[in-house]
Amino acid sequence: MSGATVSTDVVIIGAGPTGLFAAFQCSMLKMNCILVDALDEIGGQCVALYPEKPIYDIPACPAIEGGELIEKLSEQIEPFSIPRLLGRRVEGLTGSAGDFRLETSKGDVIHAKAVIIAAGAGAFGPNRPPLEGLEAYETTGSVRYSVRRKADFEDKSLVIAGGGDSAIDWALSLSRLARKIYLVHRRDKFRAAPESLSQLEDAIARGVVEKITPYQLKGLQGSEGKLTGVEVATLQGEVRTLQAEHLLAFFGLATDLGPIAQWGIDQTRSTIPVTPSSCQTSLPGVYAIGDIATYPGKLKLILQGFSEAAMAAHAIYAIVNPNQALHFEYSTSKGVPGSA
Amino acid sequence: MSGATVSTDVVIIGAGPTGLFAAFQCSMLKMNCILVDALDEIGGQCVALYPEKPIYDIPACPAIEGGELIEKLSEQIEPFSIPRLLGRRVEGLTGSAGDFRLETSKGDVIHAKAVIIAAGAGAFGPNRPPLEGLEAYETTGSVRYSVRRKADFEDKSLVIAGGGDSAIDWALSLSRLARKIYLVHRRDKFRAAPESLSQLEDAIARGVVEKITPYQLKGLQGSEGKLTGVEVATLQGEVRTLQAEHLLAFFGLATDLGPIAQWGIDQTRSTIPVTPSSCQTSLPGVYAIGDIATYPGKLKLILQGFSEAAMAAHAIYAIVNPNQALHFEYSTSKGVPGSA
Repeated sequence: MSGATVSTDVVIIGAGPTGLFAAFQCSMLKMNCILVDALDEIGGQCVALYPEKPIYDIPACPAIEGGELIEKLSEQIEPFSIPRLLGRRVEGLTGSAGDFRLETSKGDVIHAKAVIIAAGAGAFGPNRPPLEGLEAYETTGSVRYSVRRKADFEDKSLVIAGGGDSAIDWALSLSRLARKIYLVHRRDKFRAAPESLSQLEDAIARGVVEKITPYQLKGLQGSEGKLTGVEVATLQGEVRTLQAEHLLAFFGLATDLGPIAQWGIDQTRSTIPVTPSSCQTSLPGVYAIGDIATYPGKLKLILQGFSEAAMAAHAIYAIVNPNQALHFEYSTSKGVPGSA
Repeated sequence: MSGATVSTDVVIIGAGPTGLFAAFQCSMLKMNCILVDALDEIGGQCVALYPEKPIYDIPACPAIEGGELIEKLSEQIEPFSIPRLLGRRVEGLTGSAGDFRLETSKGDVIHAKAVIIAAGAGAFGPNRPPLEGLEAYETTGSVRYSVRRKADFEDKSLVIAGGGDSAIDWALSLSRLARKIYLVHRRDKFRAAPESLSQLEDAIARGVVEKITPYQLKGLQGSEGKLTGVEVATLQGEVRTLQAEHLLAFFGLATDLGPIAQWGIDQTRSTIPVTPSSCQTSLPGVYAIGDIATYPGKLKLILQGFSEAAMAAHAIYAIVNPNQALHFEYSTSKGVPGSA
């Protein structure tokens, strides 16, 4: 296996929204960087899982869809022509701050002064419900774990399963075009933004969405991958069959740090603890930002990932430019007091 | 003096970008809030000082102008119909977390459970250079401290004074339409984003911008407020006269915490130290975000203000809803593991 050998200031592992914005921040500070991602395209979960799902809390972008967010972030870094090594995982990391050596699954060797891990949930895949004959329905798209094209569900009858904000937000979003949505959750309470929950009440009042709680998925009905119904049951064994052509299951992501777990960086489950103000991990020169990074009070919002990207890039500036103070703090015209 | 009496969950002092986004975050968490600002319009410095200046580091908004940023943030909170008390300062604060009482300069009384101070540089005004006859030139607009309409400088000859990123960014921005720009700074080195500095070198090479360093402003030439030249001098007393119709001076803002300084909150100069993960000040229930807030490693970027707004809103949720856990972390469809 032979790949490229490249040298750069900063290698950014993960080309989701946080990684892309880290690339922008590094470039604004005149540091070279490269982006590496296991997927074949940039965008991470935004593109792979919800390109058409509106995201509501990006500042100054009321209701931007995942795919559009990535397009805009991509446009923002376009002037810097940042190299991208896609479709490969970073496997090995050796060396120390100022002189790291990384290897990818395609045999590339990357020399870098600092590393930013923006790997989100790591290599991610959906948690799949344990239902008999599931695979046949997955193959035909009758059972899905993400919505890539909303139009697929136009005038369809759906079961949406899950109790988190994915389930709620998709129920709300698809309620505008689906014929009927059964929202199945094993508890009576949903975990989602208070504002979304009150919109859900409206959708239920309109009759498009029907809440089926506390029920769990029990079986699939249909043949040759064509779904006709979803069986659900209570813990007490009460069974109902919901007529539906699609099952959308939102049970979270199975996360896997992958090779990163072997680099000698402190970890807690599938996250990496960092120093809040710099996002440095326990390994000097290696930084973690976005969903994979944790610290007391951490909020898992894309917004926080952006802010962490800025902090990491500023902290790394001292590694890349050891003898230069960085005199840049302001994104806007504030001037420097006393410079008259 | 008689004003309104209002009750709300959260009072947000300052309606600049950070305050507006805090209002959005509070609303998303189903908390009521009101915005108070000393200025007569929302937008803070973005609108008052640089409505047409491009801001480069807002995620997913490549080169957005100050005014447009405020428009978009305003659009984002529009569905929530958040009350605005503009053109008045908050003067008094008494009470404690869960039960604050605030008074404004127009006699309004505000009852609130929590307070977010998003006051930027406080009541701000430009630092003015100590030049003879300055006022006459300010009145006519020959001497200015901000750019509200770039078109005013079309084909004009300008002196831009200052060494920070305001001076550099405006020199770059106006170099596209001004006839000639003299960039005067008392030192040889400028303090600005590395990327901006290299663009500056290009503008100098093109001959539109001429660097006049190390020089300080010495005097104004002209009559009846009509500027014809700006005298500059080195520390050694070497004097030059630059032919110019406008002087734009960017010597930072004179900041003033105003009445906030009297509320018994710990302060350092004109900033308020906060706990990083919540942005709470030394006074429980009172939070500070954006440029006015400080903590170790703080970066004064609008971006960080947005992130701080999210943290403060989430922290305040527990004050407004003392018996409810907040199950909302995700801005995107991640689902909640184990909810099958």
